[in-house]
Amino acid sequence: MWGPRQPGQRWWQRAVRRRLPVLGWLPRYSLSCLRLDLTAGVTVGLTVVPQALAYAEVAGLPVQYGLYSSFVGCFVYCLLGTAKDVTLGPTAIMSLLVSSYAFHDPAYAVLLAFLSGCIQLAMGLLHLGFLLDFVSCPVIKGFTSAASITIGFNQVKNILGLQGIPRQFFLQVYETLRRIGEARAGDAILGLSCLAALAGLRAMKSRLHPTASTEPLAARASVLLVRSCATARNALVVLAAGLVAYSFQLSGSQPLTLTGSVPCGLPPFRPPPFSKAVPNGTVPFGRMVQDMGAGLAVVPLVGVLETVAIAKAFASQNDYRIDANQELLAMGTANILGSFFSSYPITGSFGRGWGAPGLPAAPPAGPAQGLCRQQDGQRMALCFRTAVNAQTGVCTPMGGLVTGTLVLLSLAYLTSLFCYIPKAALAAVIISAVVPMFDARIFRTLWRVKRLDLIPLCVTFLLCFWEVQYGIMAGVLVSGILLLYSVARPPIKVLEQGVLLVQPGSSLHFPAADHLQDIIRDRALAASPPCSVILDCHHVSSIDYTAVVGLAELLQELHKHGISLVFCSLQDPVLRALLAADLEGFRHFPSWEEAARCSEAELGGSRAACIDSTGESSLLPAGLIQ
Amino acid sequence: MWGPRQPGQRWWQRAVRRRLPVLGWLPRYSLSCLRLDLTAGVTVGLTVVPQALAYAEVAGLPVQYGLYSSFVGCFVYCLLGTAKDVTLGPTAIMSLLVSSYAFHDPAYAVLLAFLSGCIQLAMGLLHLGFLLDFVSCPVIKGFTSAASITIGFNQVKNILGLQGIPRQFFLQVYETLRRIGEARAGDAILGLSCLAALAGLRAMKSRLHPTASTEPLAARASVLLVRSCATARNALVVLAAGLVAYSFQLSGSQPLTLTGSVPCGLPPFRPPPFSKAVPNGTVPFGRMVQDMGAGLAVVPLVGVLETVAIAKAFASQNDYRIDANQELLAMGTANILGSFFSSYPITGSFGRGWGAPGLPAAPPAGPAQGLCRQQDGQRMALCFRTAVNAQTGVCTPMGGLVTGTLVLLSLAYLTSLFCYIPKAALAAVIISAVVPMFDARIFRTLWRVKRLDLIPLCVTFLLCFWEVQYGIMAGVLVSGILLLYSVARPPIKVLEQGVLLVQPGSSLHFPAADHLQDIIRDRALAASPPCSVILDCHHVSSIDYTAVVGLAELLQELHKHGISLVFCSLQDPVLRALLAADLEGFRHFPSWEEAARCSEAELGGSRAACIDSTGESSLLPAGLIQ
Repeated sequence: MWGPRQPGQRWWQRAVRRRLPVLGWLPRYSLSCLRLDLTAGVTVGLTVVPQALAYAEVAGLPVQYGLYSSFVGCFVYCLLGTAKDVTLGPTAIMSLLVSSYAFHDPAYAVLLAFLSGCIQLAMGLLHLGFLLDFVSCPVIKGFTSAASITIGFNQVKNILGLQGIPRQFFLQVYETLRRIGEARAGDAILGLSCLAALAGLRAMKSRLHPTASTEPLAARASVLLVRSCATARNALVVLAAGLVAYSFQLSGSQPLTLTGSVPCGLPPFRPPPFSKAVPNGTVPFGRMVQDMGAGLAVVPLVGVLETVAIAKAFASQNDYRIDANQELLAMGTANILGSFFSSYPITGSFGRGWGAPGLPAAPPAGPAQGLCRQQDGQRMALCFRTAVNAQTGVCTPMGGLVTGTLVLLSLAYLTSLFCYIPKAALAAVIISAVVPMFDARIFRTLWRVKRLDLIPLCVTFLLCFWEVQYGIMAGVLVSGILLLYSVARPPIKVLEQGVLLVQPGSSLHFPAADHLQDIIRDRALAASPPCSVILDCHHVSSIDYTAVVGLAELLQELHKHGISLVFCSLQDPVLRALLAADLEGFRHFPSWEEAARCSEAELGGSRAACIDSTGESSLLPAGLIQ
Repeated sequence: MWGPRQPGQRWWQRAVRRRLPVLGWLPRYSLSCLRLDLTAGVTVGLTVVPQALAYAEVAGLPVQYGLYSSFVGCFVYCLLGTAKDVTLGPTAIMSLLVSSYAFHDPAYAVLLAFLSGCIQLAMGLLHLGFLLDFVSCPVIKGFTSAASITIGFNQVKNILGLQGIPRQFFLQVYETLRRIGEARAGDAILGLSCLAALAGLRAMKSRLHPTASTEPLAARASVLLVRSCATARNALVVLAAGLVAYSFQLSGSQPLTLTGSVPCGLPPFRPPPFSKAVPNGTVPFGRMVQDMGAGLAVVPLVGVLETVAIAKAFASQNDYRIDANQELLAMGTANILGSFFSSYPITGSFGRGWGAPGLPAAPPAGPAQGLCRQQDGQRMALCFRTAVNAQTGVCTPMGGLVTGTLVLLSLAYLTSLFCYIPKAALAAVIISAVVPMFDARIFRTLWRVKRLDLIPLCVTFLLCFWEVQYGIMAGVLVSGILLLYSVARPPIKVLEQGVLLVQPGSSLHFPAADHLQDIIRDRALAASPPCSVILDCHHVSSIDYTAVVGLAELLQELHKHGISLVFCSLQDPVLRALLAADLEGFRHFPSWEEAARCSEAELGGSRAACIDSTGESSLLPAGLIQ
């Protein structure tokens, strides 16, 4: 949350402020803020409207549903959101998921929004935001990279004007390539031109630096004009393509595939459909829920993941904090309310592809840019708004209100014109939005930094082509297994210098108990003559009951062979646990040197110098530095 | 495996010896071994036969199935097993599971044995024995304690001679208590007398110490007699009860509930039933598998768990090594072969309740006895055989052969007599076997040693009363979650002394990345003036990509606030990962003192003394002792 915290507040005031972040900035709202928010809101709106139409196409729903989904999120996030740069709305990935789970049927899509909202709200109220910690960076990267390919390729058929291409990715690739000869020339030419125009404007923007106020007015004005065009490039391209299509329509011949007629006006306010009428009866609620199946878990989770990831990226870039649980509440509310306005599930956008960072003080692009969230943050930065921020230091979620109003206005007055938008132009908008989500460098980066992390990355990446949910679940599972493996087989250093010095590299938990026992037993008995063992628990910060039992067994077993096992450098909690277990023959020393001295003395026959668990041994000072 | 390893062998010889442990001891088998094995085998057989009848009752199958299940395991384990003290056969817990999943139908029970065997064999061949590491001690304790209550109470109805008591535990308790007035006097008197006799013999045995050879012959002989009676107490009690029942039968009135007629002879050798004929058609294989459902996972896993746990306990006590994967192969083979002889799933027994340890050199019962496996090992020790071992140091799995033959003989010649065994006597045998499995002290021990481990214990214990599989699964899940929690929230020590010294207590993995970032950010920015941060990675032995990304973000964010973040005491793998990631502004020092000196020098305006990631900084020697 931004805005200073006021220490004089009562707890309930703080709680209300925490749940309604709008109270933090509204009282300090000024006219200059309004001017900035207005500019930002309109700019965002000019991108949101054409993207909304395009994403509805990805979701397999009539185009107006994209717009229906685009305004409620803006209003709700303005009241409840904690990141001022985020807008909630339809996104490429969410649309892909909706196309999987809603069977191209608006009734399912709207019910999915309602149920996802309920689940997200519940997660927020139960403070389950921490669950997101278990989705690792490689999994997110694998998922977004695969999604960008899937979504992008899905639009190739629209660029080429092909009909009846199957949904499944591999079949789609096969069919598209096989039927490439049937491509419609008009669609293909328009689509490729739009792509070229979008790429050109995008490149222009990333090259253009803001002008200093010392430069002549004309130069500043022209730079501003180009920047504005580049920022509103989606709207411009769609507008231009629409004009082309309209002129063909007037001339009587139409070489382009058009969006077709869009119902006019605002969506009705009504509860989401809890059952669905079909020709021979109704599909009851239970059946609809069953049909959506895993979607009810995947859609809310991916939604949260997208929102929190983008909010964190912005927060880190623009220097404020977000609250994952509050984000959950905001998104849950937005989805529930949205479902009353026929919205499909929405989320904060995650890879909107607004172009390269336009921050005046952007750090030079070094190799560290290959890193995950940091790069997302830079990529997703709303340049315009960020530039405004950089100049003024003020900007509020009020911009969302402006964007939402713009969407409502276009629904009310522009829908009759939308029928002229060529599908190829919308496809170009989507492709240009998802291309930057693909990050080829991550493979090289992981190879350099941590090769093991390539496994969850590749598993997620490959399985996401089959089914998105399997990819994510498998990725989370694989990274969880790797995590458990590292706990079950901690690094254990063994040094033989007369005595056997064994040092586990991390805490001892139950899956590691047998492993440690085996290593010590094997090494201690293999030496001839069997040598005594010092267990250096310097790095062991906690121990559980199973591990204690394992050590007790080990003590007994080594004792039978006349081998002593002593402990050293025990941290306080570990020592307490071992003393509480009252192990037979348990002895410990503050440092390994003392333990080694005692072992040597023992070998020499003198046992008197040793301290046992009943004696008084000085503990290591529990301070930080040892 | 016991027996010395011979270094001159070729790899295939070693592989064959590894898979056929019998080759290790058979060539060195002698007549004196045979004499000892014969005694041990007969002793075990005298317990196995009555218990087999009783466990079949627990499994809800006709009593002969207990015997059918008791001989194949003995023979197979003799060839393939690695622990000389284990016999495979029906056990109380396995019988409980079979009663849940086989619906009291022998066809299902035999098919379950076959399929469990296949799964165990596959697990052994795939070396999945390590999975058992993830079942922690508290889960095992909770499960066995709950099972002992469930199984024990299940027999109260037989002691009381009640009919038609439901299977579900809570209903069973309710119905048994409600109908306690209907108890049959004959059954109750006999059952309670048997219980008293068993308890008495058991107590006598644990009090009786082996006599020294210097004592008079008469004393030694009488001690031996009492010990033999105590060891064969199950057989004696069942025999006595049978005689009572037989004399009532002769007198014409029968106040006791009898086992009823048992089919005579050995089981036929035939493949397990892959389909089942019912009055109106056949139940196909797929349907039978579906009916057993979760049983196909729970039965093999619990089987492995029991066998490995008991084998480990014996191995530790009698000083040899076992091989978990070889145990899996042995048990898988025994179950598959057994299913051809109408056996239900068998396992190594885990809590057979043979009485307190009778080892001459048994360690005095100290508080450490509350510990889990150690105590199981002691409790489950076959006193007689262990005593034999202690005297001679030789004893082989050949004893299993003798026990198996004894079971076959009783099947061939004694089944006609089994009909006279009163159910109450068998119930007494079971109750006296399962009572020692309940360990009330574990709650106190865990409270002292590690309170957090009480959660998986209690979850497993309580849920096992509902359904055994839910209890085990929930216990494993809860302990897994606690484990992941400890990885996600490692202990982080923070010390403020002009600089902020932050020391994570363990390795940094992805679930901890955000947490560490939050702690450092909050503490560093909260101080006024914001102070520089030293991250002491002394205890960090590994780091993954997500954590590296988190540190990169943190470096950038702190840099924006003019706060420096330096690393110290990096272990080699961690340093390599951080250098490979090429973090902007990454600096590291061998020790925190140097890092602190550099930070102070920086505050004083002199930055020249610092070493950055491109400069040459001396690494900590990667040795064990730092």
